[in-house]
Amino acid sequence: MEELKQRILRDGKVRGNNEVLKVDSFLNHQMDVAFLQAIGQEFRERFAHCPIDRILTIEASGIGIACLSALAFDKIPVLFAKKNKTKNIAGDVYISQVESFTQGKRPYNIFVSKEFLRPGERVLLIDDFLANGSALSALIDIVHQAGAEVVGAGIVIEKAFQPGGDLIRSKGVRVESLARIKAMSEETGVVFCD
Amino acid sequence: MEELKQRILRDGKVRGNNEVLKVDSFLNHQMDVAFLQAIGQEFRERFAHCPIDRILTIEASGIGIACLSALAFDKIPVLFAKKNKTKNIAGDVYISQVESFTQGKRPYNIFVSKEFLRPGERVLLIDDFLANGSALSALIDIVHQAGAEVVGAGIVIEKAFQPGGDLIRSKGVRVESLARIKAMSEETGVVFCD
Repeated sequence: MEELKQRILRDGKVRGNNEVLKVDSFLNHQMDVAFLQAIGQEFRERFAHCPIDRILTIEASGIGIACLSALAFDKIPVLFAKKNKTKNIAGDVYISQVESFTQGKRPYNIFVSKEFLRPGERVLLIDDFLANGSALSALIDIVHQAGAEVVGAGIVIEKAFQPGGDLIRSKGVRVESLARIKAMSEETGVVFCD
Repeated sequence: MEELKQRILRDGKVRGNNEVLKVDSFLNHQMDVAFLQAIGQEFRERFAHCPIDRILTIEASGIGIACLSALAFDKIPVLFAKKNKTKNIAGDVYISQVESFTQGKRPYNIFVSKEFLRPGERVLLIDDFLANGSALSALIDIVHQAGAEVVGAGIVIEKAFQPGGDLIRSKGVRVESLARIKAMSEETGVVFCD
C-alpha cells in the first residue's frame, strides 16, 4: 500500500538496527482515523470475495484498526482478545499463550469469551505489526479451539526480517501485509521488500 | 440515549448487587461497530458547537468507541493513554496514576507521549464506563499537565450509584453519560436514573 509506505517513511522513527519502528503518530498511540479507514478499505480489497463473519484482534493497538476496518466489511462484529483476565470475563473463555520476545518480559495469556466465537465462523485476524508471530499464532490457536476458520490475517506492517511471516504462512494461513519491511536502521531508514 | 438503554436491558448481564454490568457482547469485548458509530453521533450532538481538536481515551475498552466516535467529529485524531510503558514510548511522556478499586489490584500508571498533546488543545475524553472516576481523573490530570483544555467527557455508561460522576463534575468538568444507572442487581436488573 503505497500511501502507507510513504507515511512510514515520513512519520516513522527507527530505533536501533532492525529493532523498533515507532509509528505512534498515526497507528498505535495517536491514531489517524481517516488513514485507518483507508487501511480498512485496502484490507477489504485484498480479501474481496472472501466471506467473513467476524474480525478478531488483540488489545490494545489492534482495536482501533480493527474497528475502522470493520466499516469496510459491512460492519461485521469486532472481537478483541484480552490480555488480562478480569472479573468481567466469565469462566467460559478460550485461552492461548503469547510468547514474548521483549527482553525480561514473560509469556502472557490472552482470552476470548467462548460465546463470541462459534464453530464454522469465518474469521479475519487484524493486527498492527507482525514480527515474531507469537501474538498472531495465539489468535489462530484460539480460532481453531473454537472450531472456527481463519480466512486470513490483515497486517499493517510486517517486519519481514523477523520469522513471523514465514511461520504463519507455513501454517497455511493467508497473510496480507500492507507494508513489508526488509530492513531498517537509524542510518539507512526503512527499506521495503518491494 | 434510549437505544443504548434498550440494548443494556436486552444484552447486559448484571452480576452481584451494584457490582458488575457485563456489556461485552456489544461494547467492550465484542464490539458492534454500527452501534458504536451511533454512540459517536450522540456524543457529537451532545457536544455540538464545542470546538474539539482531539479525543483522548484509555486502553483498551475506550479505543474502539473513541475511534468510531471520531468519525462524527470530522475525523479528529484519537489518542489513547497506555497502561504499560513500553520501549516504543520514548521518555517524553505525561504520567498519571490510576487508583484501582478492584480488590487486590494495585494502582497503575498511564502514559501519553508529550508530542501528541499540546498546550491550548481542546480535548474530549471518552470512555466506556464511569464508576469511581479514577481513570477519568488521571486523564484529566494528563490534559492539565499538557496545558491543554478538557472540553468534557463522553461516557457510555455511568454507574451513578458510585461517586465518580459527582467527583468529576465537582471539578467543573462537563460529563455527558449516555446511560446513567441508578441501581442494579441480579434480581431487579438495571434501573436507570431517568
